[in-house]
Amino acid sequence: MSDLETLSASVTALEESIATTNGGLDVFYLLFAGAMVFFMQAGFAMLCAGSIRAKNVKNIMLKNILDACGGAVGFWTIGYAFAYGGADSSKLTFIGNSDFVLANIHDGGSLIGWFFQFAFAATAATIVAGTVAERCKFEAYIAYSLMLTGFVYPVVVHSIWSSSGFLSAFTDDENKFLGSGMIDFAGSGVVHMTGGVTALFAAKILGPRIGRFYDADGNELPEPVSFPPHSVALQVLGTFILWVGWYGFNPGSTLGISPAGYADVAALCAVTTTLAAASGSVSAMMTDMIMTRKATGETMYDITMCMNGALSGLVGITAGCSVCEPWAAFVIGIIAGWVYIFFSSLLVKLKIDDAVDAIPVHFGNGMWGCIATGLFASPGLVANAYGTPNNGLFYGGANAGKLLGVEIVGILFIIGWVGVIMIPYFMLLNAMGLFRVDALEEEVGLDISHHKGAAYDMSGPSEDAKEKYEISTSQRKLVVPADDGEENA
Amino acid sequence: MSDLETLSASVTALEESIATTNGGLDVFYLLFAGAMVFFMQAGFAMLCAGSIRAKNVKNIMLKNILDACGGAVGFWTIGYAFAYGGADSSKLTFIGNSDFVLANIHDGGSLIGWFFQFAFAATAATIVAGTVAERCKFEAYIAYSLMLTGFVYPVVVHSIWSSSGFLSAFTDDENKFLGSGMIDFAGSGVVHMTGGVTALFAAKILGPRIGRFYDADGNELPEPVSFPPHSVALQVLGTFILWVGWYGFNPGSTLGISPAGYADVAALCAVTTTLAAASGSVSAMMTDMIMTRKATGETMYDITMCMNGALSGLVGITAGCSVCEPWAAFVIGIIAGWVYIFFSSLLVKLKIDDAVDAIPVHFGNGMWGCIATGLFASPGLVANAYGTPNNGLFYGGANAGKLLGVEIVGILFIIGWVGVIMIPYFMLLNAMGLFRVDALEEEVGLDISHHKGAAYDMSGPSEDAKEKYEISTSQRKLVVPADDGEENA
Amino acid sequence: MSDLETLSASVTALEESIATTNGGLDVFYLLFAGAMVFFMQAGFAMLCAGSIRAKNVKNIMLKNILDACGGAVGFWTIGYAFAYGGADSSKLTFIGNSDFVLANIHDGGSLIGWFFQFAFAATAATIVAGTVAERCKFEAYIAYSLMLTGFVYPVVVHSIWSSSGFLSAFTDDENKFLGSGMIDFAGSGVVHMTGGVTALFAAKILGPRIGRFYDADGNELPEPVSFPPHSVALQVLGTFILWVGWYGFNPGSTLGISPAGYADVAALCAVTTTLAAASGSVSAMMTDMIMTRKATGETMYDITMCMNGALSGLVGITAGCSVCEPWAAFVIGIIAGWVYIFFSSLLVKLKIDDAVDAIPVHFGNGMWGCIATGLFASPGLVANAYGTPNNGLFYGGANAGKLLGVEIVGILFIIGWVGVIMIPYFMLLNAMGLFRVDALEEEVGLDISHHKGAAYDMSGPSEDAKEKYEISTSQRKLVVPADDGEENA
Repeated sequence: MSDLETLSASVTALEESIATTNGGLDVFYLLFAGAMVFFMQAGFAMLCAGSIRAKNVKNIMLKNILDACGGAVGFWTIGYAFAYGGADSSKLTFIGNSDFVLANIHDGGSLIGWFFQFAFAATAATIVAGTVAERCKFEAYIAYSLMLTGFVYPVVVHSIWSSSGFLSAFTDDENKFLGSGMIDFAGSGVVHMTGGVTALFAAKILGPRIGRFYDADGNELPEPVSFPPHSVALQVLGTFILWVGWYGFNPGSTLGISPAGYADVAALCAVTTTLAAASGSVSAMMTDMIMTRKATGETMYDITMCMNGALSGLVGITAGCSVCEPWAAFVIGIIAGWVYIFFSSLLVKLKIDDAVDAIPVHFGNGMWGCIATGLFASPGLVANAYGTPNNGLFYGGANAGKLLGVEIVGILFIIGWVGVIMIPYFMLLNAMGLFRVDALEEEVGLDISHHKGAAYDMSGPSEDAKEKYEISTSQRKLVVPADDGEENA
Repeated sequence: MSDLETLSASVTALEESIATTNGGLDVFYLLFAGAMVFFMQAGFAMLCAGSIRAKNVKNIMLKNILDACGGAVGFWTIGYAFAYGGADSSKLTFIGNSDFVLANIHDGGSLIGWFFQFAFAATAATIVAGTVAERCKFEAYIAYSLMLTGFVYPVVVHSIWSSSGFLSAFTDDENKFLGSGMIDFAGSGVVHMTGGVTALFAAKILGPRIGRFYDADGNELPEPVSFPPHSVALQVLGTFILWVGWYGFNPGSTLGISPAGYADVAALCAVTTTLAAASGSVSAMMTDMIMTRKATGETMYDITMCMNGALSGLVGITAGCSVCEPWAAFVIGIIAGWVYIFFSSLLVKLKIDDAVDAIPVHFGNGMWGCIATGLFASPGLVANAYGTPNNGLFYGGANAGKLLGVEIVGILFIIGWVGVIMIPYFMLLNAMGLFRVDALEEEVGLDISHHKGAAYDMSGPSEDAKEKYEISTSQRKLVVPADDGEENA
Repeated sequence: MSDLETLSASVTALEESIATTNGGLDVFYLLFAGAMVFFMQAGFAMLCAGSIRAKNVKNIMLKNILDACGGAVGFWTIGYAFAYGGADSSKLTFIGNSDFVLANIHDGGSLIGWFFQFAFAATAATIVAGTVAERCKFEAYIAYSLMLTGFVYPVVVHSIWSSSGFLSAFTDDENKFLGSGMIDFAGSGVVHMTGGVTALFAAKILGPRIGRFYDADGNELPEPVSFPPHSVALQVLGTFILWVGWYGFNPGSTLGISPAGYADVAALCAVTTTLAAASGSVSAMMTDMIMTRKATGETMYDITMCMNGALSGLVGITAGCSVCEPWAAFVIGIIAGWVYIFFSSLLVKLKIDDAVDAIPVHFGNGMWGCIATGLFASPGLVANAYGTPNNGLFYGGANAGKLLGVEIVGILFIIGWVGVIMIPYFMLLNAMGLFRVDALEEEVGLDISHHKGAAYDMSGPSEDAKEKYEISTSQRKLVVPADDGEENA
């Protein structure tokens, strides 16, 4: 190989070869990240089921599975098209309009992109399941899920993540809202607030479970009654699965790992995600412990606080994971723990019944995540991750406050948009008697009334069988002392 | 660097460098995919254990762990050698014959290939555990597992996936069966049918659990009795783990991600896998709901249907995940839900007792997956994934029907080969009294009779301890009201 | 492109491009591996919780979550700096001294390196939780965890894995201990022994649970009492999660996959890890079965043996996974099963109470892993993985015995260092009454006494509700036979 032409051909071949490698690497990256995010479905199922009473376990888990399935169908048919179809960074649109049912899409990058985005849509949908558990009709839940993944959520995605969205950070400079665009890297707002605020509207309209704030006749109880979780083991398992899945959710939101600089962003996301989860957990648990000690004199460490604190930290760092320093992630997590406790208490005061405290975690800390980004985003890291010159309020400078402004507009947009669609929808369902199971079904539990029977049967062998077996065993021992229940060999 | 020689050396170094990168990327890809497939062992363990009665949980889980361990040993010593050893695409052989115990193999590609293939072998073995649960002798199960992973399964792999196999799509053109070779991308046939048909033979020969179709004295019951699953939570967890693991199973079956075109195939697999699981789940549940409503007038949503429907969709798309369009995957999943219901009812009619309905899922839909590939394989996608000019029946053309023919031959081969070996084997075990536990052991449960005691002890503290503790706590409160159980600080 | 200058520029661009790709690939690799190792936290939580009595489940799981959170904070603030900060292969130091709180670190490689190392630190911490379960004070546990992840463990890491460590294999040749340095690839010693020996000291000082070897009044029982695990299902789930996580733990310890040769090492690790787990499991279970049959005449297969055997094999291969042939891994696993049984019996004889048998698994087999490396390390594989000319005793040659010597020194160093710090620490806690809960709290369980109530509430609907529901259902059926609980449609 000494001839210039040959060498030139080799170089061209190498360039193609590297492009192929990078393409493979990035598809693999999103396959990994998407699978991790999909795994979060198992986390939500375990966490929600563990948090409620044993008599409704089948119901909640069925909802968890079916919103993933419905999410796949809804996002395949229309959702993805509405979210990303036909985006053009030079002009703003309300909704996408191509690539329905993935027709004519065969390149790996787009296909795996759909897979990753589907997993996010399913996450947004499943957040609601827990809040409305133990009294929401199954059919209403499924209808709502399809609507969310097929239409409501895709519009939010389009507005904030598509390059044609009016709040997007990826549109042309002249189209960027306040010259900045919203930074919501992995979706504190887009995913968690959308799910969380839907849960809030649903819980308000659906009303509390019987016996939580009011008795079966509608009389207010002297004080709110907490229903103990039926299995803390499932809750913990779910929490850990969610935490692990977040390592796909946040770092994966670079959408690739091969382009220059992406690896730095992804690695930072892994670190900030870890620190916010850790500090959120400690913050919520210790704060609760101190408050409880002041109120009752007893020192109690509450594992629910610990788990929801970790999840709060995770939601809180999701928007800014790529643009905050590790120390800022630590601070964001601590505040996330307090945000959780505040919203959780507020719901009780407002007599809004959230069976798994998903509203404080996803809505409260979804908002906090967006605001925190507007406060803590470091100029250098924003430049790395977004290539734009804006930063959080605390870093001052010419752009101080602009980003925070956009984040607040984004929060208001999500609440408003979801409210405009879902409040009338839930009210209509409610007025038609399609939203809530009847009181007797609620009392006996949804598993018996709608799903063919209880989720558990922990009974062992009958006493009679045990007795017969023991007699038989001891008799055989008398006859063949060193060989029980086997042929003589 | 202005001299041609130097530049040429740099280019050569770059070519080596990219080859190294690609090698690393592909090993990483199979490490990821293999670990995901291995994780499915946990899924099977949870799903099987959840589906049966509490008194046999230790037994089934022990079988699940041990078939993975036995699978590793069996596949390391002889299985891998039989499956892939000494393959030569220019001539057909019945079985491989080199690389026993991985002797002299040190390159990363081969080693990680073994790891990935081992995880598949373990999957094939573990499918049977659920079907024969609650009455199969432990020793018989272990002996069978070793035989399957060490010999029976490797021959199937060799025939269909090795480049020397008589049904292989990877052999030289002149050796391809019907000029096509069987397309079973990730193993609807090779893995799921092999496990599923073994389960069918085993269940038939072993007989049903006492009290399912016949009472303890062998009298037929007026109608079949279903034993309720002891924990739906474990079932759901298992189902989600299996679904997640399938993202290693199907996309991972490209066996690499760096070569040109592989990323497109892998990404397509992720999409088709998702859609078939989703539509299978909805199809089975809704069909069952409608059938139940017609029969009883009650509207019941059955989570077992939902889970087994999803798994049926997954098995059904496994053969064709790389060669079917997303819409075809959606259709294949819907039909997979019906195939599941049909085979499940058929087993009840034939009085074959499958404790976890693995036969309908893995055998029924394993067959459906192969047939579906013969119907829906798109010519363009087959060309991408296999480089051959065949396609499914529905696409017509010169080759229409040929592929379907090969798929059917493949199905018959798997049933025949497994039957020739396993039917006599199970009958021999049965005749010697080594296959089934005695009736008393079955009644008391295998955990007490073979595994040192029950799997659960959910008892909390004694009432006495609780009373003493309450008295003590209230007394301490009287003395030190604001500080319980701690030193004064 | 026919001009030499242009071509030269293209080549330079390609070199940068490949470096970027490799950087992305390696960050992705450690993100994957770190997430898998972090997932092991869920495995430990499930395994520990399943192994103990239901009345202490919240307590153990809270400890498991919090040592991960505390580990993140401790390792971020000081631990990582002590372990790796300012390392310089030309001189030995006792402890690192830079990069506290990751200040000024923005490159992806370092950030993801922290993430991966944090997950290891959390693993070392969580090993202790199980051993001291059911009687250790919550505050003492948290204080200890922070100390371990922040100081004790980092010093061990520094000594053996940092390039400035006195036992390190990565320091300059003239600084290598015995001319070799310790081979502890993924941490049989560094992680598992450090956690395991801490557990041993803690268990000895803390004393056994009431009713295990002594009654509540301190009288010795006629023979040791085993408390049955409250949920074997959780144990099995935990074991499988740990096994899967080990595919991040061991192969991930290459710390990258793009450099030449790394992929071969990583793939070998996946194979040896699999084989040792499998053979360890079978070895422990079969050995126990034979011993039990000799003692009692009954043939019992013990799932606890099977699980702890697999974990023992995994711990045992962790040090040498990159330098042992597959056959050696198989042998190491078999012996690991025996090591487990030996240490487990020894603890009972010494009346040291380990609630989950973590000491035999992590301390016993952590030692065995180091020694096994000194015996079985193949010269060719050591050259591949470490680039040094040493090997295990069984391979003979000029260096025979040197490596084994270093491994033994490493074992003694870990025991000594941990002992010097932790024994006085635990004794002090004990003397001050801060280490162990009081007897009444232990009897009633820690969940009630410290964590607001029981971990489970499996109660279904009241009998009254069920009766009312049945009456209502049958009445409605009389009126609207084909439509239950729904409006007429």
